[in-house]
Amino acid sequence: MTIPDFSPSLFIGKTDCISFGSGQPDLPPPHEVYDILSTYKSFKYGLIQGEEKLRRSLVNQYPSSTPDSFVVTNGASESLDLSLRVISNLDNGKPNNVLLPRPYYYSYPHMVNFAGMKPVYSDLQVGRMDFDDIEEKAHECKVIMINSPSNPTGRIESISTLKKIEKLAEDLDIYIISDEVYKDLIYVRENYLINGPKVITVNSFSKTYSMCGFRVGYLWSRDNEFVQSVINMKTHTSMNTNILGQEMAYTATQVDRGFVENQRKVWEERRDFICEGLTDLGFDLWKPEGAFYVFPKPPKGIDPKRLVWEMYDKHKVISYLGEWFGNPKRVRFSYALDLEKIEQGLKLVEEYINR
Amino acid sequence: MTIPDFSPSLFIGKTDCISFGSGQPDLPPPHEVYDILSTYKSFKYGLIQGEEKLRRSLVNQYPSSTPDSFVVTNGASESLDLSLRVISNLDNGKPNNVLLPRPYYYSYPHMVNFAGMKPVYSDLQVGRMDFDDIEEKAHECKVIMINSPSNPTGRIESISTLKKIEKLAEDLDIYIISDEVYKDLIYVRENYLINGPKVITVNSFSKTYSMCGFRVGYLWSRDNEFVQSVINMKTHTSMNTNILGQEMAYTATQVDRGFVENQRKVWEERRDFICEGLTDLGFDLWKPEGAFYVFPKPPKGIDPKRLVWEMYDKHKVISYLGEWFGNPKRVRFSYALDLEKIEQGLKLVEEYINR
Repeated sequence: MTIPDFSPSLFIGKTDCISFGSGQPDLPPPHEVYDILSTYKSFKYGLIQGEEKLRRSLVNQYPSSTPDSFVVTNGASESLDLSLRVISNLDNGKPNNVLLPRPYYYSYPHMVNFAGMKPVYSDLQVGRMDFDDIEEKAHECKVIMINSPSNPTGRIESISTLKKIEKLAEDLDIYIISDEVYKDLIYVRENYLINGPKVITVNSFSKTYSMCGFRVGYLWSRDNEFVQSVINMKTHTSMNTNILGQEMAYTATQVDRGFVENQRKVWEERRDFICEGLTDLGFDLWKPEGAFYVFPKPPKGIDPKRLVWEMYDKHKVISYLGEWFGNPKRVRFSYALDLEKIEQGLKLVEEYINR
Repeated sequence: MTIPDFSPSLFIGKTDCISFGSGQPDLPPPHEVYDILSTYKSFKYGLIQGEEKLRRSLVNQYPSSTPDSFVVTNGASESLDLSLRVISNLDNGKPNNVLLPRPYYYSYPHMVNFAGMKPVYSDLQVGRMDFDDIEEKAHECKVIMINSPSNPTGRIESISTLKKIEKLAEDLDIYIISDEVYKDLIYVRENYLINGPKVITVNSFSKTYSMCGFRVGYLWSRDNEFVQSVINMKTHTSMNTNILGQEMAYTATQVDRGFVENQRKVWEERRDFICEGLTDLGFDLWKPEGAFYVFPKPPKGIDPKRLVWEMYDKHKVISYLGEWFGNPKRVRFSYALDLEKIEQGLKLVEEYINR
């Protein structure tokens, strides 16, 4: 049987499948986020930079920041897109390249290309950044991208590596874009907030508060000139982020942190369950330390592409091809679904492998 | 007295002024748009292209369209930005230029530059497009931009000119981007929907339904390949448009058209009032045929820049410099404020002129 070419869009709206595909929480946002809706009455343009009370509430999470150092965007995606476009337009004598750890979140190379830049890849070693390789390649780049915890690997970087990258970027006077959308979903330590004069930290309400559909993200940077350039661009390319989405996001910041802790416990339980199940089936995996993905190699003799295609086509189980994330030997399973469904899905994988 | 350099951002949040500045309706959206909020419970990612029921409801307004020919975006701004970026990336042998009628909506040249393209200007004659000039310059462009009714001029193009541009674009095999965000605010005729295989029509819920802050716009095109390219780009640069904003926009499409008719009557009354007032004060204006702007030359002996600055600085009346829209001899007044305030504002302008 030949396997057709396919992309994640094939799986959109497939509600009759068990899906280890999409990377979105299945648990709902805090109820407080909906409680504000019944009395909401605003309708006018908001500030391009984002509502002030939302930015003020973020200051608590970012030491030595001010409301002026944030820009609220249409999800983390727009923060990344605007950041790359602004940096691409900078004529600072450096090659217009972005250093991307590989495997990577599948949008990164597209974003880099759309911004008129070129990706330079640095392959992860056992799921972690290889500092020596980064150090060698950073000279030919304007930006180093970091994504810890990582989609698709679920790994986090060691704090010592992050500190070495901070110093390297500062020495070379290049940017770091740190995509930390999974910062509240780390199982093994607190998040380490990367620091530096040209660090751009990107975050979102999508994963922490299950608010994917509302598309509220933000960036934070100590580089005021950069922040101003982002605001200038956003003024013309999309204007303010949806004012009601921002109000809902603000409400989420006021919710007891217990909400986030509870979510993390649920993810951790699911992680342990799926990792044990996949290991028992002969998958070779790095144990995820954050986010809600596991990125294993299938058991010997099982072709990853055939596995993903046939599991979908014959058993209605969705998983994602590693090649979409830059590693064709692996498969990505999201565990953003309840334990019962994970169990059912793993049984079907077992039947497939033992067929 | 020297006049400082200033931009529209100076006026943001100035609530103690009479503002002829910002281009947003002061009248609220239909109440139905808020009625849906109290029971809203969704939170997951939506379709990148936009919610199907919203796209299906738009089909009625666009003859021979299907839900597949629309993309719902973060306001009309994102539709314009994505369209320009997609066209800029096309390697079709044509110069990477955009034909922009001047005066223009002040974001256009920025958007064109951000997309890596260059503007080629065609000066309006008495507020309308000069077809002979367009015909001459279109050969060096990938796109012709049309904005009828126009911000800042309030003028509409004649249907015969629009038809000639349709034919020209088709003969040259180039795109038309028609920004029709004021299509429901035309006082003198029905809107003429431009037609052609490479026409991209951009619209929004901001002006028709007073929903500026919710940032829901869309584009429509018969060019399927183009539509797919826009979806592909948006997948990586911002993902779906806020799902709740889309639900509110869908609700607006179901509201009786009487809402739109009533709004238009309000705008028309204000237009007549401000035009008469400004004419009496010696301003030289084109009578607006749509939108809610008038773009006059000040009376003889009054410098436009000094007028705008001093009206703001001394009298707390906000108006916009024509130079922001590509014509330094004129001033833009928005009449998106109630008659009483228009009257107060005009009195202060009168005092200034007769000082």
